Amino acid sequence: MTRTIVESRTRTAIIGFDQPFCVIGERINPTGRKALAAQLEAGDFSTVEKDALEQVACGATMLDVNAGVVYNSNPDPNVTEPPLMRQMIELVQGLVDVPLCIDSSVPAALEAGLAAAAGRPLLNSVTGEEERLERVLPLVKKYNVPVVAISNDDSGISEDPDVRFAVAKKIVERAADFGIPAHDIVVDPLMMPVGAMATAGLQVFALVRRLREELGVNTTCGASNVSFGLPNRHGINAAFLPMAICAGMTSAIMNPVRPQEMEAVRAANLLMANDPHGAAWIRANKPAAAEGATPEGARAGRENRRRRRA
Amino acid sequence: MTRTIVESRTRTAIIGFDQPFCVIGERINPTGRKALAAQLEAGDFSTVEKDALEQVACGATMLDVNAGVVYNSNPDPNVTEPPLMRQMIELVQGLVDVPLCIDSSVPAALEAGLAAAAGRPLLNSVTGEEERLERVLPLVKKYNVPVVAISNDDSGISEDPDVRFAVAKKIVERAADFGIPAHDIVVDPLMMPVGAMATAGLQVFALVRRLREELGVNTTCGASNVSFGLPNRHGINAAFLPMAICAGMTSAIMNPVRPQEMEAVRAANLLMANDPHGAAWIRANKPAAAEGATPEGARAGRENRRRRRA
Repeated sequence: MTRTIVESRTRTAIIGFDQPFCVIGERINPTGRKALAAQLEAGDFSTVEKDALEQVACGATMLDVNAGVVYNSNPDPNVTEPPLMRQMIELVQGLVDVPLCIDSSVPAALEAGLAAAAGRPLLNSVTGEEERLERVLPLVKKYNVPVVAISNDDSGISEDPDVRFAVAKKIVERAADFGIPAHDIVVDPLMMPVGAMATAGLQVFALVRRLREELGVNTTCGASNVSFGLPNRHGINAAFLPMAICAGMTSAIMNPVRPQEMEAVRAANLLMANDPHGAAWIRANKPAAAEGATPEGARAGRENRRRRRA
Repeated sequence: MTRTIVESRTRTAIIGFDQPFCVIGERINPTGRKALAAQLEAGDFSTVEKDALEQVACGATMLDVNAGVVYNSNPDPNVTEPPLMRQMIELVQGLVDVPLCIDSSVPAALEAGLAAAAGRPLLNSVTGEEERLERVLPLVKKYNVPVVAISNDDSGISEDPDVRFAVAKKIVERAADFGIPAHDIVVDPLMMPVGAMATAGLQVFALVRRLREELGVNTTCGASNVSFGLPNRHGINAAFLPMAICAGMTSAIMNPVRPQEMEAVRAANLLMANDPHGAAWIRANKPAAAEGATPEGARAGRENRRRRRA
């Protein structure tokens, strides 16, 4: 059974087919958040603090930390990202005790994050591009961490799912050459917007199934991409997540602060038999959540449930 | 490609893997609805009329019609159901022009419904029980209609999905002996409540995939059973439907009046590439639905979408 182990200083999370879906909080990311980028340049980390606390309170299993900011004062991310990544990692792991996902396209920032992170973070990411494989896989080996493998290569992102599968397979094989086991590779099959490519969902469901059955790897994706450009994005995301989970996807980088998506994930955990005794579902949906019921009410609910099962 | 054709007097619906999910409205059913049962005994069909109109307005593809009432004046369903079924079918098809699903466990009521229904209704149901096979399959053949096949037999409902698959296979084979093709069998793999059996969802997803791949049949289920006895049932149903659709389920007997479940079905159609150009999703979610926008706004939305796809 494939199990990807990630750790904070004191806590362990497992990504796996027999585990509750791993929700990787996406909020700590200045890309496309101009106000946050300006704050960080000014040394103001209040939004990062708020995002860390809020995402964990909403049920994130892990937090993605991305320092991809372009400063007005210095536009070179190779210079600015590594120290910012270190600073953000130290701040976040001082505030919350969940495993982190170190997210950058700048190898020096990945390394700075690895040096700063406690426990066993997830490295995000390597691709099938030759230069990235050669640069990132030695880091993965040196720090003995799991890594997100994005299935594009030097020829770009293929619209052919067979090519995307082949790229993922190549990364798994190259990782093996470095002594990195398949269970430490979490493949991102690349979710395109269904508004741009009608078969994007079908492709990912089929890819996730193949990646699981043929390579035995865990999978992830940037879930909200699926609904880009369409109305009522949360409605699309909230159906996509259970479908991807049903196909075998085991984690996603997503916004845990959105109740509709998180309810869909909790329901999918229940329906995949990854919520023992329905405890997490019942806890999240007990009357107390809606109308301040008493612990007695929750106990009565459990009692009714036991009777029904008898 | 498997296609089950159902027809009303003038309209055709297709159940199939490349079609939008077929929503069979469940409301016209006095079982467990005491007030409705009493109304029907008193000759009052106003609730049936309301349920027919409302379900079609909410997007039902077909309507299930069940006359399973136990009259105080005559407790024998073999006597009471056939004329009531005829009357209900005539009433409903006079009001709405969607295909009907004739639902009874009383063979004489099935036959009365078949005689009354216009077009090509779906017969609901036959089981793997010998007496039912011998009684119902000749009706299916005589009237040349598709039939729901429920995967239980004389030994009851098995908790073993392999046994449920074997029962479905037996029904498909027995139907073939009568000259009934597999594309006219819609298998109900039997959805148990996840609150009673934690693996009930997983079982149905695996069964639906096997029924599709090995027998090439369409599938259905009583979708809301999945959440029986648990809190926030709509939240569970709204995740179950996309998951079942992702596994290959092509129809469900469900409540189309519930917006959360219908939104999940529409999103799943989009994600399965069964909503050409996202037209149904955009129509259901255009600003007009929420805040009375103009047709011009909807056109502008479509135009933006075209630009994005270009």
